[in-house]
Amino acid sequence: MLRSRIVILKASVLFVLISLSFSSFGATDPLPSWNEGPIKQRLITFVQTVTGSANPNYVKPEDRIATFDNDGTLWLEQPLYTQFLFAIDELKIKVKQHPALLKNPAIKALLSGNQAALAHVKQKDLMQVIEVTHAGMSIDQYHAAVKKWLETTTNKRFNKPYTALIYQPMLEVLAYLRDNHFQIYIVSGGGQEFIRVFAPTIYQVDVSHVIGTAMTTSYAYQHNQPVLIKSPKLLFVDDHAGKPEAINLFIGKKPIIAFGNSDGDKEMLEWTQSSNGNHMMLLVHHDDAEREYAYGPNSKVGTFSNALMQEAAQQKWDVISMKHDWKTIFPN
Amino acid sequence: MLRSRIVILKASVLFVLISLSFSSFGATDPLPSWNEGPIKQRLITFVQTVTGSANPNYVKPEDRIATFDNDGTLWLEQPLYTQFLFAIDELKIKVKQHPALLKNPAIKALLSGNQAALAHVKQKDLMQVIEVTHAGMSIDQYHAAVKKWLETTTNKRFNKPYTALIYQPMLEVLAYLRDNHFQIYIVSGGGQEFIRVFAPTIYQVDVSHVIGTAMTTSYAYQHNQPVLIKSPKLLFVDDHAGKPEAINLFIGKKPIIAFGNSDGDKEMLEWTQSSNGNHMMLLVHHDDAEREYAYGPNSKVGTFSNALMQEAAQQKWDVISMKHDWKTIFPN
Repeated sequence: MLRSRIVILKASVLFVLISLSFSSFGATDPLPSWNEGPIKQRLITFVQTVTGSANPNYVKPEDRIATFDNDGTLWLEQPLYTQFLFAIDELKIKVKQHPALLKNPAIKALLSGNQAALAHVKQKDLMQVIEVTHAGMSIDQYHAAVKKWLETTTNKRFNKPYTALIYQPMLEVLAYLRDNHFQIYIVSGGGQEFIRVFAPTIYQVDVSHVIGTAMTTSYAYQHNQPVLIKSPKLLFVDDHAGKPEAINLFIGKKPIIAFGNSDGDKEMLEWTQSSNGNHMMLLVHHDDAEREYAYGPNSKVGTFSNALMQEAAQQKWDVISMKHDWKTIFPN
Repeated sequence: MLRSRIVILKASVLFVLISLSFSSFGATDPLPSWNEGPIKQRLITFVQTVTGSANPNYVKPEDRIATFDNDGTLWLEQPLYTQFLFAIDELKIKVKQHPALLKNPAIKALLSGNQAALAHVKQKDLMQVIEVTHAGMSIDQYHAAVKKWLETTTNKRFNKPYTALIYQPMLEVLAYLRDNHFQIYIVSGGGQEFIRVFAPTIYQVDVSHVIGTAMTTSYAYQHNQPVLIKSPKLLFVDDHAGKPEAINLFIGKKPIIAFGNSDGDKEMLEWTQSSNGNHMMLLVHHDDAEREYAYGPNSKVGTFSNALMQEAAQQKWDVISMKHDWKTIFPN
């Protein structure tokens, strides 16, 4: 009798220990690279709320729309957008082939190597460069060029390829939401076809869930096979108001959780906030000069203006401090 | 001993009977409204091939892209596209409010009720009407107008709402592919936001998987809430070459199976045919005047030209005869 009581007691203690370890300790912490704090806690509570089938705020898997900006939210964007660096390298190749291109002052400026001048190049100008360098290429050829560049280019400061300069804490958020049957989309001002090259591998986000600034394509035949050729014409810019517009075009539903890091994400977060039921809006703040960058509000790349900081405070959007909320920045 | 042999024999017979009933008889026929024949057999073989994990032609679920045209492939399109009928009814309301619109000869022709004249209205003109009737509406308002019209409008010949005039054999194909973890997309020349209103209910296709001709939208604020307003400007026409272009934009992968019914689907089928591995291209041929319609090659709505019929024969695309391949047309 006593013996069986001890067995029951032992079993109970074991059960409690197992429960504890599953609820609050390391082994099953879905966000191990996040420091304990209100943002981590709100993220976990949010996921538990919308996935708890008995919860009045339960959301069906097909409506668990999560949208992520890419540059500065999922991967490095300083001192220049990675796609910009790629475009400059491609431009160098083009200029070697066609030296007359140097007569274009924008192209000349781009190739000057002057960091300050480069930082002032507008997205519109970048798009012109992309037009010069990539129009007439097939989508497949473009993908191959991006893939090759990513495989052969190293970031000097971190001595790593760009595909390794992704944020470990955000990878954990992606995995956590995926495990909880969220529909994860990338919604980026960067080029859709650029991001499609690496999103499946580094983020486990399928190409069909990559929304980005898009060029038109034109259907043609080459060597008796149909191909899609990149045309020198923008279809839409997926930034600022373009983000909710593209979210509607591609998804047709409002996100219930959205992550951004700059002024270009404001409208996406507002759109998310206007969804019914529970929702969560978050901004990554680059305040860690030592481990990554601290841009300040006046950066031309990934601008997080004072106005955005003010709106975040007013709307109770979560501002993630890289310095204080993240234990690590990049994957090991 | 004898007894146990009999038991084994009985069990074997039972097993054989069960196997038979699961492989070729009614209870588990995935396509009961299809007459037995080569197309039904090829469909089943195709699905078994790409889903059989031991098969060298196995395709992962995320790459099992299936695309379906809508008008004339999944639902009725004669004598006029359903969206056209909706637009005319909306135009009537607008003209009552703003009689000056009748000065526009296109609008006058559209409201004449002359079937022959209507059949000659081009998609471009239809788009102009849609611009007149819907620009300035929010997406939500537009959806509400479509929903109301669909709920209150009856097709005279069949005495049914348009949402009931969908093809039962195609519903079975959708369900069969869905059960086999295909990614099903609608790829229609019709309006994306129009189709989104009914696709989830009648086809079990999520709004995020509806690709159609799209107007631009513009992000704005009304009553302190963000809204998307329909703009009077086409973003792209999802027909002919626009289909593979939109498939790339939205999905980024080639379909492995595609269904269409008219010249506007040709490029989508060619694109599907250019995919690696097994693929299947099918065209619904409207040859059943008694139960539905027999358009012939010269119809202005849902044109299935002699040239398309010739290409189908050359490329070995399957041409589905409504008359001979389908036991029933509409759901009971």
